[in-house]
Amino acid sequence: MPSPSSLALPHVAQLHAYTPGLQPTESGWVKLNTNECPYAPSPRVAEAIRREVGEDGNSLRLYPNPKASPLRAAVAKLHGHGLTEAHVCIGNGSDDILNLLVRAFCDANSGAGYTLPSYSLYPVLVAIQDGRVQTIDFDRTMQLPLAQIAESKARAFFLTSPNAPTGVAFTRDEIEAALKVFKGLFVVDEAYALFAKQDAVPLLAKYPNLVITRTLSKAYALAGIRVGYALAHPEVIDVLDRVRDSYNVNRLSQAAALAAVGDMDYYHGIITKVKETRDFYIHEWQELGWFTYRSQANFIFTEPKNAKGESGPAVAKSAYDFLYKNKVLVRYFPSHPLTASFLRISVGTDEEMLTLDEKLQAWLQHA
Amino acid sequence: MPSPSSLALPHVAQLHAYTPGLQPTESGWVKLNTNECPYAPSPRVAEAIRREVGEDGNSLRLYPNPKASPLRAAVAKLHGHGLTEAHVCIGNGSDDILNLLVRAFCDANSGAGYTLPSYSLYPVLVAIQDGRVQTIDFDRTMQLPLAQIAESKARAFFLTSPNAPTGVAFTRDEIEAALKVFKGLFVVDEAYALFAKQDAVPLLAKYPNLVITRTLSKAYALAGIRVGYALAHPEVIDVLDRVRDSYNVNRLSQAAALAAVGDMDYYHGIITKVKETRDFYIHEWQELGWFTYRSQANFIFTEPKNAKGESGPAVAKSAYDFLYKNKVLVRYFPSHPLTASFLRISVGTDEEMLTLDEKLQAWLQHA
Repeated sequence: MPSPSSLALPHVAQLHAYTPGLQPTESGWVKLNTNECPYAPSPRVAEAIRREVGEDGNSLRLYPNPKASPLRAAVAKLHGHGLTEAHVCIGNGSDDILNLLVRAFCDANSGAGYTLPSYSLYPVLVAIQDGRVQTIDFDRTMQLPLAQIAESKARAFFLTSPNAPTGVAFTRDEIEAALKVFKGLFVVDEAYALFAKQDAVPLLAKYPNLVITRTLSKAYALAGIRVGYALAHPEVIDVLDRVRDSYNVNRLSQAAALAAVGDMDYYHGIITKVKETRDFYIHEWQELGWFTYRSQANFIFTEPKNAKGESGPAVAKSAYDFLYKNKVLVRYFPSHPLTASFLRISVGTDEEMLTLDEKLQAWLQHA
Repeated sequence: MPSPSSLALPHVAQLHAYTPGLQPTESGWVKLNTNECPYAPSPRVAEAIRREVGEDGNSLRLYPNPKASPLRAAVAKLHGHGLTEAHVCIGNGSDDILNLLVRAFCDANSGAGYTLPSYSLYPVLVAIQDGRVQTIDFDRTMQLPLAQIAESKARAFFLTSPNAPTGVAFTRDEIEAALKVFKGLFVVDEAYALFAKQDAVPLLAKYPNLVITRTLSKAYALAGIRVGYALAHPEVIDVLDRVRDSYNVNRLSQAAALAAVGDMDYYHGIITKVKETRDFYIHEWQELGWFTYRSQANFIFTEPKNAKGESGPAVAKSAYDFLYKNKVLVRYFPSHPLTASFLRISVGTDEEMLTLDEKLQAWLQHA
């Protein structure tokens, strides 16, 4: 009998799995590494889950609504701009939606395009599909490379806005300029859009090849329930529904998400607080002389300088390691020249940010 | 601008989505169509969910354990036979696991094999993958077609045992006989195994190309939380983890599933009750002269006869329609000659089965 993994398709045998940020199971960590919200979700979420569970969990016997129809309707209403249930597909996290998009639109002949750096899941999803990748490099200015997007022959192009991991957002006009020159499916991954000044939603009515993906993992403080969604032309939604698992979103998550999108007053409050904290620290680190992007997300991408005023991959690594030893988790992406000198720091509570600040000061004295 | 769906891959544009059983949203239905458990899940499940949610849902801010490690360990322990966490992969329902298996092991050159009839999701998953399908027809005796399995050149073969929709289970010896002649990946879909006399778990130690899939949707009364799993050689699990979404199983479902597999005393009770009810009605319908398979699952596949003693697709359809009009939902599969004369009826509570029985009697008087 040969090794059972030798039975896997050749490209699968060579895959490298996506590396999620560390999820420590013991307490005591200041966790600023996976862009979770530092504040609790709307109190209506816990209520809605308790209601769905009931006394004895009897409703859990039954399969969930296969289209998550009430949630689709609520999401459409939330965004307005003439969107209906037919313009919405719900995913088991927006990663599920991104996966469905890659499966439906990308193969070895007509690949997926995306920028570098951006969300590091895209290459993993394309590799699982054995698809062709066409990347476009940002330079340090993070200007949208419109000419290269225009030339791209990708069947689907993924643009993260606000970008990860820099936090730089593209304006609606910039995105429209890209839509005018790109003829494939144009996916704007708006995981962080609720922290930004603009989003691309109003463009959906005009561009049937535009797909917007959203998640409840960041601004809605619900990474634990795995809900995300796509907004797109009904024909695109229909394609996603054909490759989607019928029961991809469980009953509890549907109930939780429905409660969350119904309580935007609460979320506007915590989003405002996250943005204030973010802007305070962007300013602080810029004052220190650290190159720091003007993030419009719930994280900050900053290039630390040591006490000698040096920056670079070794300096960033040193800061990362020092923070790690002191139980402060941030994210470090060594593999790309535009990211290797930086740390990506999720915006935490005031208390968490003070601890981070204190540890960074201590690092500065050692480094 | 062309139609946006024309951008989808050619095979995706032609897909037909899986048709799940009806999930009525209004009350008043006797729902015997999707093999859900008629009894509530273990009371520990509701407790575990409430504990995970806490007062304010604060833990839901955080991503779930990306490998569902505690649940993997508990599942391994539950099955014994030397299985460890490394032999287990958790899915967002067993449909997620089946999907990952098809993605990792099937393509246009080396297709997926399965029997007809069996779980109607397999062809949908293979079609999404643009894979080649090699089917083997059962005859009405439902004997395992060993010679044809031996000749199959499929890279992966899916056998449902107990079979859906007939409920016929294959013995461990029969499955071992298939493993001796088939050299690809052999997947035994044991969604209904907890209602059967035997399972294939003890064969895992001997056959590294064996994969067993399980679900919590049936015997565990948890279709609403979407948890299933694979048991296999660690190399196969490693392959699945490379194509799996890192956060495919949310926090609440992990907590719920962990509580459920820890309360087998409770489940043995409701499983025994479901089997007793099943065997009672198999006997009753056989007494009526209806050809009825000796199901080892939580549903019954029976070929109704009308008052004139006729059976066939028109008779089965007539019974289905009559039940539907009387708000009793069962499942009817008209597309295959071996299934078109039958109804698949999930085993319900005593009260539900009495209502069904009463409506079938009424149908007999009309038909």
